[in-house]
Amino acid sequence: MASKKLLLLPGDGIGAEIMVEVEKQIAILNRHAAAGFETETALVGGCAYDAEGAPVSDATMALAQAADAVLLGAVGGPKWAGVAYEMRPEAGLLRLRKEMQLFANLRPAICYPALADASSLKREIVEGLDILIVRELTGGVYFGEPKEIVDLGNGQKRAIDTQVYDTYEIERIARTAFDLARTRRGKVTSMEKRNVMKSGLYWNEVVTRIHRDEYPDLTLEHELADAGGMKLVKAPKQFDVIVTDNLFGDMLSDIAAMLTGSLGMLPSASLGAADAKTGKRKALYEPVHGSAPDIAGTGKANPLAMIASLAMGLRYSFEMIREADALEAAVAETLEAGIRTGDVMAPGCTEVGTGEMGDQVAERF
Amino acid sequence: MASKKLLLLPGDGIGAEIMVEVEKQIAILNRHAAAGFETETALVGGCAYDAEGAPVSDATMALAQAADAVLLGAVGGPKWAGVAYEMRPEAGLLRLRKEMQLFANLRPAICYPALADASSLKREIVEGLDILIVRELTGGVYFGEPKEIVDLGNGQKRAIDTQVYDTYEIERIARTAFDLARTRRGKVTSMEKRNVMKSGLYWNEVVTRIHRDEYPDLTLEHELADAGGMKLVKAPKQFDVIVTDNLFGDMLSDIAAMLTGSLGMLPSASLGAADAKTGKRKALYEPVHGSAPDIAGTGKANPLAMIASLAMGLRYSFEMIREADALEAAVAETLEAGIRTGDVMAPGCTEVGTGEMGDQVAERF
Ligand SMILES: CC(C)[C@H](C(=O)O)[C@@H](O)C(=O)O
Ligand SMILES: CC(C)[C@H](C(=O)O)[C@@H](O)C(=O)O
Repeated sequence: MASKKLLLLPGDGIGAEIMVEVEKQIAILNRHAAAGFETETALVGGCAYDAEGAPVSDATMALAQAADAVLLGAVGGPKWAGVAYEMRPEAGLLRLRKEMQLFANLRPAICYPALADASSLKREIVEGLDILIVRELTGGVYFGEPKEIVDLGNGQKRAIDTQVYDTYEIERIARTAFDLARTRRGKVTSMEKRNVMKSGLYWNEVVTRIHRDEYPDLTLEHELADAGGMKLVKAPKQFDVIVTDNLFGDMLSDIAAMLTGSLGMLPSASLGAADAKTGKRKALYEPVHGSAPDIAGTGKANPLAMIASLAMGLRYSFEMIREADALEAAVAETLEAGIRTGDVMAPGCTEVGTGEMGDQVAERF
Repeated sequence: MASKKLLLLPGDGIGAEIMVEVEKQIAILNRHAAAGFETETALVGGCAYDAEGAPVSDATMALAQAADAVLLGAVGGPKWAGVAYEMRPEAGLLRLRKEMQLFANLRPAICYPALADASSLKREIVEGLDILIVRELTGGVYFGEPKEIVDLGNGQKRAIDTQVYDTYEIERIARTAFDLARTRRGKVTSMEKRNVMKSGLYWNEVVTRIHRDEYPDLTLEHELADAGGMKLVKAPKQFDVIVTDNLFGDMLSDIAAMLTGSLGMLPSASLGAADAKTGKRKALYEPVHGSAPDIAGTGKANPLAMIASLAMGLRYSFEMIREADALEAAVAETLEAGIRTGDVMAPGCTEVGTGEMGDQVAERF
């Protein structure tokens, strides 16, 4: 079997610690399933800025472009609060997303049954929740120009960001959402602010057309993003796939993640278009949670979202469906067995650190 | 006492029904407190478009500018889904906000003790919740130019919206938030996406400066809007006043409202700057909820948010603090007595319609 190249970018904060636990699972895949994974590690974020003078170096970009998949921990932290805008840790992540053209960000919001009580929502509202947020990731206000602060010369400055969406960008993310809905419960909810934004109006129009022309067998609903956010909080189980733009996706996917009570458990996949020749997609997998600088280095971080991100990689980049299922089952079984890191500790459970949690999953994998 | 001019704009959907209940309370104020309110009624939203050809006519705009305060019900509904963008019902509301320069939108998110169980969140998370979202209302992506859909000529279109904030816009909303925090628990949390948006970066800078120079005795915290949204869902009681831009404010205030379980109970105030001569501020008061076209005309709508909006008007436009307190107490007592409209009905309570609810509040006022 040809070797599979994984680029590991642990990043800042707890990134390094949780990546170690992923490497344990990769070792198992290589040993028991002869998976042939080859890994390489590089810097991204604040640590890259400190060591290499940029939040992601050109050399690391080249490695990312050449890899079959990238696994990323997290970036950022108060240490770099004063760094110039272009050099801030997040700029490294944004460059990876943009230059690898990872336009489709898949964020499952799943409530692990063992963790339903960790949610701030009532158990019956979130138990069994399984929704998928499909967030556009290379467009919108994140990248549109002009994006600047200009001096107006009269003691006033003006800060500007630009939300831009072209037809093809909306078409491809809509198709991604419909394709995924077909493998699930067949329903897509598109969210925008068409009552206020021209981009929302046009988003609505394009998604509606793609549905009518290409996926008439599926269900499409539209929600204003504010009303959709309310429905997420009130009754999230009414949704299956939610498709939305970069900024609304940022907000809504974080809120959906928090609903589940399983934030430390949730992975994400960022995918590019399928290559016309090879059919391969560029891909980056990362947890939904951040770099948690407050607990970095204490061995308390929950590695499960990072491990679940590897499972998404097995599924979407390597078609190793059986292995992905097995790894996800190992995570769920570890939780069922009452093994918990501090963030999701509950009465009657056993509290473990980062390394022990990785070992427990590895044993069941 | 000089007469006080109120412009009533019931709008679409349930707007007319709930405005009737407000008129009952105004009648009491005039009868028992010789308040001297004079009311006039005009159209806004879809009904204005149908009858007058625009979602708000120039004549209505003139009435609004001349009034001491405007009370608005709600606008919009599926009936006008096909109307041209410039003529949609929401355009009427946006024109009122912009031309009256109502830059400060105050949205209290209060959990009425009697309704804590109506929340999808656990009782202990929301019981006693009392936060205030201060949303910038006349700037940002709602009004920035360019705002358009352009034909690129190659089968592609491009949709553009522009987020714009000038120094003075951020300064005045920051001051509003700090002034309000001083009358509360003294803490302001500013939310933006400084890690992605230049407007967020600049917002952060200006709010920080206003705090340092003018309100050093108060507490200021900063949150990224996505992380702030998560914290709202997880532990909303950590906040006091939240200050944020127009679009984030739209999302975050709706989510905060939904947390309380009291959506049908929540009012809002939109205020302009104090006039240099008279000290008077232009003002518009409206419920946070929408026009609920599905139940319009059935007599089931909950009028309490609309009545609570009048209470905010008494407080902020007329300095009738005692009357505002009394009206808010009447609302709370009605709920404590187990009187409920269908949306917040609970076992052991008495279900009433819109008119009966208004009467029950009037009795206790
Ligand atoms: C780190 C930051 C730039 C990023 C974003 O805003 O996209 C993060 O919040 C996310 O959701 O992946
Ligand atoms: C009706 C709509 C234009 C409005 C907004 O987006 O501001 C509403 O959602 C609100 O929050 O008042």
